[in-house]
This record gives sequence, structure tokens and C-alpha cells, in this order.
Amino acid sequence: MQLLEDRIRREALAVAPDVLRVDMFLNHMIDVELMDAMGREFYRLFADLRGEVTKILTVEASGIAIACAAARCFGVPVLFAKKGLHNKTLDAETYTSAIRSFTKGTVTDVSVARRFLHAEDRVLIIDDFLAHGAAVRGLTDILRQAGAELLGVGIAIEKGFQPGGEQLRRQGVRVESLARLQTLDFRH
Amino acid sequence: MQLLEDRIRREALAVAPDVLRVDMFLNHMIDVELMDAMGREFYRLFADLRGEVTKILTVEASGIAIACAAARCFGVPVLFAKKGLHNKTLDAETYTSAIRSFTKGTVTDVSVARRFLHAEDRVLIIDDFLAHGAAVRGLTDILRQAGAELLGVGIAIEKGFQPGGEQLRRQGVRVESLARLQTLDFRH
Repeated sequence: MQLLEDRIRREALAVAPDVLRVDMFLNHMIDVELMDAMGREFYRLFADLRGEVTKILTVEASGIAIACAAARCFGVPVLFAKKGLHNKTLDAETYTSAIRSFTKGTVTDVSVARRFLHAEDRVLIIDDFLAHGAAVRGLTDILRQAGAELLGVGIAIEKGFQPGGEQLRRQGVRVESLARLQTLDFRH
Repeated sequence: MQLLEDRIRREALAVAPDVLRVDMFLNHMIDVELMDAMGREFYRLFADLRGEVTKILTVEASGIAIACAAARCFGVPVLFAKKGLHNKTLDAETYTSAIRSFTKGTVTDVSVARRFLHAEDRVLIIDDFLAHGAAVRGLTDILRQAGAELLGVGIAIEKGFQPGGEQLRRQGVRVESLARLQTLDFRH
């Protein structure tokens, strides 16, 4: 997606060999117009799934804006997995999976209330980054626990030099990325 | 706002005398169509601020979808404060404030990167709940640190039986709530 790739080239900061800072438009400050364009692009890429998708699943917090932009096109709700286990306002009954962040060096449990995910659900996962694939694997594990079907994975920025995308595709998962970077060696 | 009030009456669950669960449409599963209607309502309520607002400030995670819906109408970016202090992908240079959650019984630091908030900024705060006003006070404190101006506070659900809203209004802060509940004693 040219609009996103241009924006990355122009503004994103590589702050480590494998860490890309896009907090000026994606995951701290949010350019809502860009989110909407990204939502429409996911709708185009997954055009064959219109009428098939029942829910869009993402993980808090940076996935929410992108997932909402896509969900608006598909006319379905967003379900965002919550981080951490204890939450008085969340159901006791949850599907939970552990996600390891290689960037942050942490392991985080993410949970979805069972009553919002069912065996009849046909789900599109949307997230901001795909690097090692840990978040997508955690969300896929949650779908498996619910017996729901994964229709595809839509990613804003895929780090093509890390193995997550290829591993998922080899496993038969449909992955569509709006920008696939082969390096973070940008010039500014 | 009738649409939101009806939705609360029909679906929300009071799980404790002061805890309202709206995770079926607002802060776990997200009804994007409802978010858009809420965004348009904030745009109507703050009509006099069109062209004045430069940024919408919220806090992750449940504020993001509502803030984006409002920001789309105003044509400005969203800035969401991040919880926790250590984040390799976030600037070292932040404005930080502590927010106490009475519902969750926790104290959380929230931060905004300094380079995204300036003395010229005229800001609308948007959040999902207003009860004791802790989140709004934390975000207001961040605006004060940046020298930015607070133009108003837009809240989806105000717990009118808790003191936050009245305290803020007495301090001269403009607060607009889409639904103001005097009790959580719903019948289902």
C-alpha cells in the first residue's frame, strides 16, 4: 500500500536493528485518515471474504484503531484481546494465551471473554506489526480454544526480514500485509 | 444520547454497585457503528470547537475507538496515553502522570511522548467512563506539563452518582457526557 509505505519511509524511525518506531501516526499518535485508508485496503485485499467474516479480532492497544477501520467496511464488530489476567470488569470465563514480545522482552497473557467468541465465528485477525508472529499465534490459539475459524490475517507492517510471516504462510494461513519491509535501514 | 442510553439499558450489566460492564459493545467487543454515532454526537456537542481543536487525547485501551470516531469528525489526530513506564518503542522523553483506578484498585502511570504535545495544542479529552475523575485529572496533568490548553472533556458514560463529573465542572472544566447514569440498578 503506497500511502503507508511512503509514510513509513518519510516518518518512521528505526531505533534499533529490529525496532521500528511508528508512534507518530500508528501506535501513539493516530492518523485517523490513514487508518481509514488502511481499513479500506484490507477490505479490498479480503474482498472475497465480504459477507463471510463475523468478527475482527485484534489485541490492545495499537491494533484497535486499525481493526475498527477495517470492521467499519466489513460491517462486523471488533473484539480486542485484553492484556493481563485480572480484570474485575472482564468475565471470569476467558480464553487465554501467552504472547511473547521479542521487541519488549516480555511475556504477556492475552484474554478474550468466552461469551464473545463461538464455534460459528469466522474471524479476521488484524494487527499493527508482524515480526516473529507471536501475537498472531496467541490470537490463533484463542480462536482454536473457541472452535472459531480463522479466515485470514491482515497486518499493517510486516517485518519481512523476520520469520513470522513466512512461518504462518507455510502453515497455510492467509496473511496480507499493507507494507512488507525487507530492512529497517531507512535514510532520513 | 438516546442510542447509547438504550443500549446500556438493554445490554449493560451492573456487576457491582459501582461497576458497569459494557464489554459487549464498548470496551472489549466494539460496535463500530455505535462508536461512529458517538463520534458524531461529540462533534455536535462541541460544535463551537470545530477548527479550534488540534488533538484528541485519550488513554489506552478502551478510549481509543471512541476517540478515533470523534477525531474523524474534527479532522485531527488522536494521541493516546500509554500505560506503564518502560517501553522501548516509546520515547524516553515523556510527560507522565499517575492514575488511580477505583474500579480495579490499582495505580497506573500513563505517559505521552513530549514531541507529540506542545504549548500550541488545544485539546479535547475523550474517554469511555467518568466516575471519580482520576483518568481525566491524569490527562489534564499531562496537558499542564506540556503547557497545552484543555478545551473540553467528552465522556461516553458518566456515573452521575460518583463525584468526578461535578468536581471537574466546579473547577470550570467543560464536561459533556453522552449518557449520565444516576444508578446502576438496571433491570434485565
